Amino acid sequence: MSEVFQDVWGSKFNLNQYVCLSGPSHAEEVVRGLPTSIVAASTNINSAHQVQKLMSSERFRMYSTDDLIGVELGGSLKNVIAIAAGISAGLGFGDNTLGALLTRGLVEMSRLGVHLGGQVGTFSGLSGMGDLITTCCSQHSRNRYVGEQIGKGRKLQDILDEMLMVAEGVKTTASAWALAQRENIEMPIAHQVHSILFEDADPMQATIDLMTRKLKVEIG
Amino acid sequence: MSEVFQDVWGSKFNLNQYVCLSGPSHAEEVVRGLPTSIVAASTNINSAHQVQKLMSSERFRMYSTDDLIGVELGGSLKNVIAIAAGISAGLGFGDNTLGALLTRGLVEMSRLGVHLGGQVGTFSGLSGMGDLITTCCSQHSRNRYVGEQIGKGRKLQDILDEMLMVAEGVKTTASAWALAQRENIEMPIAHQVHSILFEDADPMQATIDLMTRKLKVEIG
Repeated sequence: MSEVFQDVWGSKFNLNQYVCLSGPSHAEEVVRGLPTSIVAASTNINSAHQVQKLMSSERFRMYSTDDLIGVELGGSLKNVIAIAAGISAGLGFGDNTLGALLTRGLVEMSRLGVHLGGQVGTFSGLSGMGDLITTCCSQHSRNRYVGEQIGKGRKLQDILDEMLMVAEGVKTTASAWALAQRENIEMPIAHQVHSILFEDADPMQATIDLMTRKLKVEIG
Repeated sequence: MSEVFQDVWGSKFNLNQYVCLSGPSHAEEVVRGLPTSIVAASTNINSAHQVQKLMSSERFRMYSTDDLIGVELGGSLKNVIAIAAGISAGLGFGDNTLGALLTRGLVEMSRLGVHLGGQVGTFSGLSGMGDLITTCCSQHSRNRYVGEQIGKGRKLQDILDEMLMVAEGVKTTASAWALAQRENIEMPIAHQVHSILFEDADPMQATIDLMTRKLKVEIG
């Protein structure tokens, strides 16, 4: 988003005063005063601190970071994995699959994000892992909903046609997979979600493909 | 567990042939053939590879690692956070709180685990983050159940008295907090769970205490 601002505003845009808030924070729950923790990110850590002090309360805890690119990418890429989590649920899979999907999903989000300039620790933080969990476990998520309908056998266009809100993860999947190919980054889950959404791949076969890849050591 | 084996078996125990399987794997779901991914850990990576090749299938994917201590600690410490997740649900909190709790919970699990010799990447893996998510999101988890009942205002002994199965996280909380104090490791969530379980602290006040700690940068 900061790059979009720069494109649109040009020299009027001051990146050092730009602060991005991200993390697990469904608005419906923030409004109800349910405990929420997020991160304030800015290339200028003092700007992040300023917002952190201004907005923190006993029901809304803020952390700060200077890893703007990592925070922005985490908030975006997690929607690809949310679609995958929905597909898994639509296929009737359970909590074991969900735990593995989010863990391996975060590995490939981090892989792309670090390559693009983010810090690995950010992806393990509130705007990465935290937002990923909340989005993938929540019934409120539109991206997860799209995936679930796909997993049950419906077609993408039919699902999107009847939705009033935007499921941005569909477009993010196309962008993420294009970036992964351009930068030569291994993203097997994003690849399968892309094949299912845009190339009519069978979700069950995609799952088997993921499970039967070359056996690996866990880290790396 | 490997240390317990060593204590009990003494010189008959060969650590290099010992392999620990851990990760998000409710037995009920493995039996039904739902896709499950776990990690095989051994101080001798060849032993881990042997088990990995032997047991992997298209519904059961195994990774390998030589970080035995990290895998064993992750599988144990996650139960403390599962109790916290249950308390949060029992208090009526939502997905935002869950996402934050798991993220910051994993930070303090890693902090203690790395201090005790584990690798930080292991805690972001299947036996750390993966198992944490599956346990904390699942209705099957006995540790989460204990927390939920506590959050609803019941007393620990009453809950344990009526349970047929063991909620090991209660004992793990005592151990984890003792270790944290002995090694001088910051574990605010484990501390609050300990206060609630064993010192009759009020769960709502404990939450406010967690939310109003000194404001921090996210990493570290």
